[in-house]
Amino acid sequence: MPEPLKSVLIANRGEIALRVIRACKEMGIRSVLVYSEADADSLPVKEADQAVCIGPGSVNASYRNAQAVISAALAYKVDAIHPGYGFLSENPDFVRMCEEEGVGFVGPASHIIKSMGDKIEAKIIARRAGVPTVPGSLGAISEYEEARTVADEVGFPMLIKAAAGGGGRGMRVVQTADTLEKDLREIMSEAEVAFGDPSVYIERYLTDIRHIEIQVISDGETVLHVGERDCTAQRRNQKLVEEAPSPVLDAELRDGLAAAAVALCKEVGYTNAGTVEFVFDNVDRKYYFIEMNTRIQVEHPVSEMISGIDLIKLQLQIAGGTPIGMTQEDVVIRGHAIECRINAEDPENDFAPDPGRIVSFRAPGGFGVRMDTHIESGYVIPPYYDSMIGKLICWGRDREEAVARALRALDELEVEGIVTTAAFQKEILDSERFRSGDFNTAYVGQLMANRHS
Amino acid sequence: MPEPLKSVLIANRGEIALRVIRACKEMGIRSVLVYSEADADSLPVKEADQAVCIGPGSVNASYRNAQAVISAALAYKVDAIHPGYGFLSENPDFVRMCEEEGVGFVGPASHIIKSMGDKIEAKIIARRAGVPTVPGSLGAISEYEEARTVADEVGFPMLIKAAAGGGGRGMRVVQTADTLEKDLREIMSEAEVAFGDPSVYIERYLTDIRHIEIQVISDGETVLHVGERDCTAQRRNQKLVEEAPSPVLDAELRDGLAAAAVALCKEVGYTNAGTVEFVFDNVDRKYYFIEMNTRIQVEHPVSEMISGIDLIKLQLQIAGGTPIGMTQEDVVIRGHAIECRINAEDPENDFAPDPGRIVSFRAPGGFGVRMDTHIESGYVIPPYYDSMIGKLICWGRDREEAVARALRALDELEVEGIVTTAAFQKEILDSERFRSGDFNTAYVGQLMANRHS
Repeated sequence: MPEPLKSVLIANRGEIALRVIRACKEMGIRSVLVYSEADADSLPVKEADQAVCIGPGSVNASYRNAQAVISAALAYKVDAIHPGYGFLSENPDFVRMCEEEGVGFVGPASHIIKSMGDKIEAKIIARRAGVPTVPGSLGAISEYEEARTVADEVGFPMLIKAAAGGGGRGMRVVQTADTLEKDLREIMSEAEVAFGDPSVYIERYLTDIRHIEIQVISDGETVLHVGERDCTAQRRNQKLVEEAPSPVLDAELRDGLAAAAVALCKEVGYTNAGTVEFVFDNVDRKYYFIEMNTRIQVEHPVSEMISGIDLIKLQLQIAGGTPIGMTQEDVVIRGHAIECRINAEDPENDFAPDPGRIVSFRAPGGFGVRMDTHIESGYVIPPYYDSMIGKLICWGRDREEAVARALRALDELEVEGIVTTAAFQKEILDSERFRSGDFNTAYVGQLMANRHS
Repeated sequence: MPEPLKSVLIANRGEIALRVIRACKEMGIRSVLVYSEADADSLPVKEADQAVCIGPGSVNASYRNAQAVISAALAYKVDAIHPGYGFLSENPDFVRMCEEEGVGFVGPASHIIKSMGDKIEAKIIARRAGVPTVPGSLGAISEYEEARTVADEVGFPMLIKAAAGGGGRGMRVVQTADTLEKDLREIMSEAEVAFGDPSVYIERYLTDIRHIEIQVISDGETVLHVGERDCTAQRRNQKLVEEAPSPVLDAELRDGLAAAAVALCKEVGYTNAGTVEFVFDNVDRKYYFIEMNTRIQVEHPVSEMISGIDLIKLQLQIAGGTPIGMTQEDVVIRGHAIECRINAEDPENDFAPDPGRIVSFRAPGGFGVRMDTHIESGYVIPPYYDSMIGKLICWGRDREEAVARALRALDELEVEGIVTTAAFQKEILDSERFRSGDFNTAYVGQLMANRHS
């Protein structure tokens, strides 16, 4: 039996570093924080039991510098590394280094991170586990005949995506079978020119969708889910507002999604916390697995607020070899929670980052209000990292109360010196569409666009 | 049918004023705050929709000035007054003025406040409702023969209390029947000298007790209880730490206490929020009604955190004539909550108030942590009011987690420029006796005394 963790190195910054430090303190675990020169004066550095500077501000020189992080872990003799999200958290090479050096990692084994990080392999595993995936070709396609066969299954309109593309580049919607041959030829030659690789995938083209994900946690024996989170309120694939439970699921769909996520975890022998992401098609009310995040997510507090379960503490407990000690029946969802990611971005200027000095900051408070943030009055946002300065999470007995509370809290939030997304989030929450629960991933973008028209 | 409140005047200051403002905002109610000159720069004044100065800093000239408050309510045409706690909140004359002027009051009718404010009458009502009271004489005693009869019921040791005494003055413990006549004669003549009134009461002398209270809320039809709060961690009758559920009650006692509190409310036709206070005798594990507070209490957030019910919003809802809309089955207790009252007092100097300027303040945060406070960096504590500067309420899945979280949060709390009770509260929570749950109302005083011995 491994021993409960006595010390943990936190390989991250900002609010999630502070979040992990707090969990460590409550568990009596010594926290060692690695930080970049740009973060020397940050709150997590003050709050950690020990803090070690591992390099300059640039990400690759510090928070993504696997060797520097491992060296600090060995020098400070910690039992394990908590990677937070982003940076090294889903880097299988880093996790393999930990395994080779005998340093614990708060997350799954490197081979699982690697498998789930490969989109094709993850899709194959999902299908093997009986989890529905977006209909389409599994591997790359290069012949028209092949495309026709897949099209029979997928239907029109469908999407042709360059295998080497991504982020919206190298994609084409095919409306009917009539143009398939021509479209295929064109996108393949475009892909060859743009990426040096003509191979493409075919997928059903889903236009009216929601993003719904399942929080899972496993100790290798027991796999639990902590319900879903609905992250449909996105702008250009950036989540702005997350909530749980989802306003559109009925009990059957909810159970189906959760069972699919658990089946996937069992199929790969998943351990620790993870999130199984799905698209939910509003039209036929079906869900399809898209990917798994093998780490804690930004929006995890939403699940904590409705379940009462401290996911970071559970991660640390499991990494220390102590079984979960709960059954699925012990996971009881209560009320509704909504998270707003407060970014230092200017919604009136195409969400351009607005770093700088925070002249004055006051977090909202009161019943059901939680603000996870590392900022303080006088804090200067370094230019090296993402623009999220905090997360405002509000709980209510039902969705209506959660929305009212979040609006009140956004009103109370005071960040002077920089522009944030808070005013836009107020607009989202206060809109009739959001209040009704009936919207899709395009909604937030449309709300912004309509404002400018 | 009365209409839901559209506007509320808040006749209070500090954290409870801010608490009520937040509830109003979430309900779309216009908030009008009355304040004293000493509070002109306070956070509640900034956060209220409107703020009206009603007098100088001294309590009688402002927050206890019934006429000034009523005038403001009439001038600003509010639907009702929320009195918070303290000040005018349990003043039946003030409430009768509200009734006569046609201004709503967020609390019960004046005659109920008057009845429950009279200790003898409250005791008679409790007995009529079948609620156990501390064994003893109901009225004043002036004859030895009478005292002997009561003594037969009460037993020894017993307590003789001057009717006109209070706050620990004019009390004597009688150990055996042998000295009863002499003790009675002496305390009566002492009372005559000290208070001009020789009449005394007799009560069972309880030495090993806990303070346990039941939160109730009623719309006049439905009377609900929201479980108990255990306020045993007191020092000289000042509550320092409150928690719920109580660590000593079993299901039978818990149900008995709650049923007693509900029976009392029904007996008097109680409306709105209230707290029924009991002493719990550790020796024979019996409980006795002592008094009812006909207002919201400082420690109400403890009940909110475990029930998910926003008591202030429910108060405002009921005052607006909307029924509770819940049954007792809807009140589900989850986890454990602990509140520390953070006072600007110096534990090392006999808890002398330590007002002054707060140079810097940072509230603790994270999952399960709520800090209700009106202070900010740069805030100057006025000398006119009580020394409480905030309440730190921590929730956990069980008592152990709640204690660990509260200790972490107390650690994180940063108040520079003045001395607070936080360090002593850390000592209380961290002590073995507190952790065990097995202590009585004398414990905190002993902990302090032992430190100095």
